[in-house]
Amino acid sequence: MPAFNIVPFVSVENMMRLVHAVGIEALLTRLAAAIAEDFAQWHAFHKTPRIAAHSPDGVIELMPTSDGTTYGFKYVNGHPSNTVGGRQTVTAFGVLADVGNGYPVLITEMTLLTALRTAATSALAARHLARPNSRTMAVIGNGAQAEFQALAFRALLGVDALRLYDIDPAATRKCLRNLAGLGFDLTACTNTAEALRGADIVTTVTADKRNAVILGDNLVGEGVHVNAVGGDCPGKTELAPEVLRRADLFVEYEPQTRIEGEIQQLAPDHPVTELWRVLAGDALGRTDPRQITVFDSVGFAIEDFSALRTVRDLLAEYPYYEDLDLLADPDDPRDLFGMLQRARPPRPAA
Amino acid sequence: MPAFNIVPFVSVENMMRLVHAVGIEALLTRLAAAIAEDFAQWHAFHKTPRIAAHSPDGVIELMPTSDGTTYGFKYVNGHPSNTVGGRQTVTAFGVLADVGNGYPVLITEMTLLTALRTAATSALAARHLARPNSRTMAVIGNGAQAEFQALAFRALLGVDALRLYDIDPAATRKCLRNLAGLGFDLTACTNTAEALRGADIVTTVTADKRNAVILGDNLVGEGVHVNAVGGDCPGKTELAPEVLRRADLFVEYEPQTRIEGEIQQLAPDHPVTELWRVLAGDALGRTDPRQITVFDSVGFAIEDFSALRTVRDLLAEYPYYEDLDLLADPDDPRDLFGMLQRARPPRPAA
Repeated sequence: MPAFNIVPFVSVENMMRLVHAVGIEALLTRLAAAIAEDFAQWHAFHKTPRIAAHSPDGVIELMPTSDGTTYGFKYVNGHPSNTVGGRQTVTAFGVLADVGNGYPVLITEMTLLTALRTAATSALAARHLARPNSRTMAVIGNGAQAEFQALAFRALLGVDALRLYDIDPAATRKCLRNLAGLGFDLTACTNTAEALRGADIVTTVTADKRNAVILGDNLVGEGVHVNAVGGDCPGKTELAPEVLRRADLFVEYEPQTRIEGEIQQLAPDHPVTELWRVLAGDALGRTDPRQITVFDSVGFAIEDFSALRTVRDLLAEYPYYEDLDLLADPDDPRDLFGMLQRARPPRPAA
Repeated sequence: MPAFNIVPFVSVENMMRLVHAVGIEALLTRLAAAIAEDFAQWHAFHKTPRIAAHSPDGVIELMPTSDGTTYGFKYVNGHPSNTVGGRQTVTAFGVLADVGNGYPVLITEMTLLTALRTAATSALAARHLARPNSRTMAVIGNGAQAEFQALAFRALLGVDALRLYDIDPAATRKCLRNLAGLGFDLTACTNTAEALRGADIVTTVTADKRNAVILGDNLVGEGVHVNAVGGDCPGKTELAPEVLRRADLFVEYEPQTRIEGEIQQLAPDHPVTELWRVLAGDALGRTDPRQITVFDSVGFAIEDFSALRTVRDLLAEYPYYEDLDLLADPDDPRDLFGMLQRARPPRPAA
């Protein structure tokens, strides 16, 4: 039995080992299954919109949730200008804890894990919202999230043709380089319209922090599924409102998406469907091949919870973690001071 | 310059080293100074009541705050029945981050640090609320927090006579043992009335999670300062409401204390004074030697912030920390996937 003071910690290096040991696509599939399972238990979760501390440079957020047995939260920042100094725009770490005694049971990096769970959530939604046999996806925005989306859509939907576009050609080149040799049919495009040609699915995942029109109304044809990932905070959207008005809209958690998602551009009573209802069989996903569907993804705490518990479970099989001496654990719980006193180093002899 | 991926981590063992290197009373004094400094900057802080996840067994809370330059939060649980299984009722860890880029700059155990900052806050308040030259303190509840309170009151006020009482005599014996040889005049008492005899200050710090009357009205005489530490959540109070009505009441952050503190027993408009106003010179502390004063302490996020930044500053002088590989740091910030891909272990030869 482990000592009470020890909490398993998954570093970035160990997370990468874990991902490769399981296999990226196998892990994405497993994450999607965990998210589907937790979304189907929607009412068991204590849900709260993220707690954000905004500043001129960005935002720091805490995203807690609990299913009554296990508690999880993620710390995540969003600082668009970080790349100038060589830092990530978004970094994250997360904690899982036992509701029964409040003790943390896992601390892990979540920058990589968030990229994986975001892609897994997108693909999970698309499995219910994209046309069956969708094989071609346009990826608008070829930054840090792009390749994860690509692999998730292949793992879950069989998408194997990608049409890539980014306002910065270097990003597209990076994406092509990373995906080369992985069995995709890859096409670099010089504008959004070209990227959308023949696409069954459009993933928008740009990093611009403003109300941009990445996807104009005239570009989105019948039957397309739009996986809108990049618009995820107040003032940051990617889709023309006309696209949203022509589409059936699916969201993670309506109160949060109204504030942070693409639908912040619409009337507050514009109808949307929460994804969990589709997964639970309470609502329909796509019903018509000509229908336009939009998954207005902003990222929700339950997805992080699902990811955290998946990592916790995997550690039993793949022990890629270190022991962190995080919690004071005196022999007598009331004797915290005695523990401290007994740790006093002996005085050097005079 | 440190790599961007690394965050300093202070384990329990390193926190104990740090405490002994600085000296407990010197550290308590330093913590009180930092808390006084931050409380005096009250309006610079982004304040939010703690975010609590309640369950039948206890509560898990996140306590974030920011002064606009630095962000801090504490994870803390409260599970009264934990001691049955040999765990701490309260454990905690904390994080400090740079508001400008959102990167964490410190992760530390906070079980010990919370015990220290709670005691430092109590003593800081008492320096403004207890009668000058107070030397004798009754300590009702001799659990994990008792000795820290004792040392803080000596370091900041010169209190050197302690009258100890706990419903469990074993707790009092533990407290006597730990404080023996530290220069206090110690008296073990068999009931609260006896403990209060001649006391200038009464500290109540019991762990009972209910509305208990640890301090009845008839026991509290003129001129006493009551340092009420143990009543800190809805349904958990220690003082008879009559004591509160006869006293001048001081709190950390009124909106939080109305819910969690002793004053949950009073009308919502019963007058209280926020401690920061006393520290900033905006309000008076004690004005009369016959006055009864109560510091209705529940613990506030700014105190944790002050403790976290004190530890961060001390690490420059006392490098008791480990490097934690917490943040993904690809060479090209947009190339998270490339970093992951390059970490793939080589396939074994067939």
